[in-house]
Amino acid sequence: MVTTLLAPVGDAPWSTAEFESRLRAVPEERYHDRHAFNIRMHSGALSRAELRCWIANRFHYQRHIPVKDALITAKLPTPALRRMWLRRIQEHDGLDEGEGGIERWLRLGQAAGLDRESLLRGDAVLPGVRLAVDGYVNFCRLRPPLEAVAASLTALAAPDLMRTCVDAFERHYPWIEPDGLACFRSRISEGGRDSSEALRLVLSWACTRDDQERAVAALRFKCDVLWALLDAVAHAHCPEGS
Amino acid sequence: MVTTLLAPVGDAPWSTAEFESRLRAVPEERYHDRHAFNIRMHSGALSRAELRCWIANRFHYQRHIPVKDALITAKLPTPALRRMWLRRIQEHDGLDEGEGGIERWLRLGQAAGLDRESLLRGDAVLPGVRLAVDGYVNFCRLRPPLEAVAASLTALAAPDLMRTCVDAFERHYPWIEPDGLACFRSRISEGGRDSSEALRLVLSWACTRDDQERAVAALRFKCDVLWALLDAVAHAHCPEGS
Repeated sequence: MVTTLLAPVGDAPWSTAEFESRLRAVPEERYHDRHAFNIRMHSGALSRAELRCWIANRFHYQRHIPVKDALITAKLPTPALRRMWLRRIQEHDGLDEGEGGIERWLRLGQAAGLDRESLLRGDAVLPGVRLAVDGYVNFCRLRPPLEAVAASLTALAAPDLMRTCVDAFERHYPWIEPDGLACFRSRISEGGRDSSEALRLVLSWACTRDDQERAVAALRFKCDVLWALLDAVAHAHCPEGS
Repeated sequence: MVTTLLAPVGDAPWSTAEFESRLRAVPEERYHDRHAFNIRMHSGALSRAELRCWIANRFHYQRHIPVKDALITAKLPTPALRRMWLRRIQEHDGLDEGEGGIERWLRLGQAAGLDRESLLRGDAVLPGVRLAVDGYVNFCRLRPPLEAVAASLTALAAPDLMRTCVDAFERHYPWIEPDGLACFRSRISEGGRDSSEALRLVLSWACTRDDQERAVAALRFKCDVLWALLDAVAHAHCPEGS
């Protein structure tokens, strides 16, 4: 049949409500709050060494967020969109020296007894974490803006996880100075705004079923990045009792 | 001889003063203020159609500056450096709707009788201009930060050119509304600060003679981009007397 030689007609796009619900289902199913290491962290089961290992490796992820956000900014076609995305870079890098999310993560590390210079050198960064972070940065470098922005939609689930983190750290790890937890607290409000903006863009940009499926796949990929980071930390050798 | 199998020892690096003087010599020799089209523009010899053609095509270059600056930002390793470079994006995109260098260029176009929507669609962008701008953006995307930042050092010569532009437009092209010239005026101070910052980075980053030579080559490349843009505009068919 001649028609089989033609490109197949794609499926009809999902309705906006259906598309949004499929996006929201991704972090509900596979966000890293379900990872065994996070569950142990939140139940207070981690040793000091394990918690420090997580902080040092999560810091490696955090410090690359403005890098991937600058790569996304370079893909956005209008001053208005770039202004919106630039705010994310500013939240992490701060408006002045000693401010911003990266600085707050360094302070969490110090509050947990880690050396600031060692964190900055990345001494404790595990190979799997380095690969996961590189993978995410390269995804944002190489994929279209729809997918790079859709990948950021893990922020839909971040505020709840940050609240859980604050509660768990206060209850189970009182040896960490409470001031160190500012990195979680600030993301509770920032994460909500970031995800609303990104969701609005993704819903409006994805016109075809193919676009919508690629956006859902991008969000699944991002969940895999966060999951792989915890896999690496969970399997690291952390000396007991330290 | 065994020694011929070894990598050759590079030339000794130039002193900082020698390196700076070689960098400054590049725009002195080949900045686009020497291009025949710019000389005609500044002497008042352009027709309205030619001037409009230049504005529409230079606008295509201007609107890509925040894109290349976001790509440079993504290469910078610290929050402090990224904060410095982010300011450039903000200067072009503005802090609010209706502000910033891109908006000022749109207003120059409108002051010269060009249609804003047509400028935004890029209707008049010439193939050679598109290629020159793509070439510059890709240079900043693909080359190391030393070279991408060195390429921005045409800003060393920009404030003088902007002053010449303001004078020439006021004297020779009074049919352009004077408010339209804000895009030149704002770059007189911004360009000075941008080039001082970038020069400081390039001087401190280039440790070897090879680094220094690559920085000089990057600045030559950038001069070529601006030159090629004017070549394309100079050879465009612009209807006379329009």
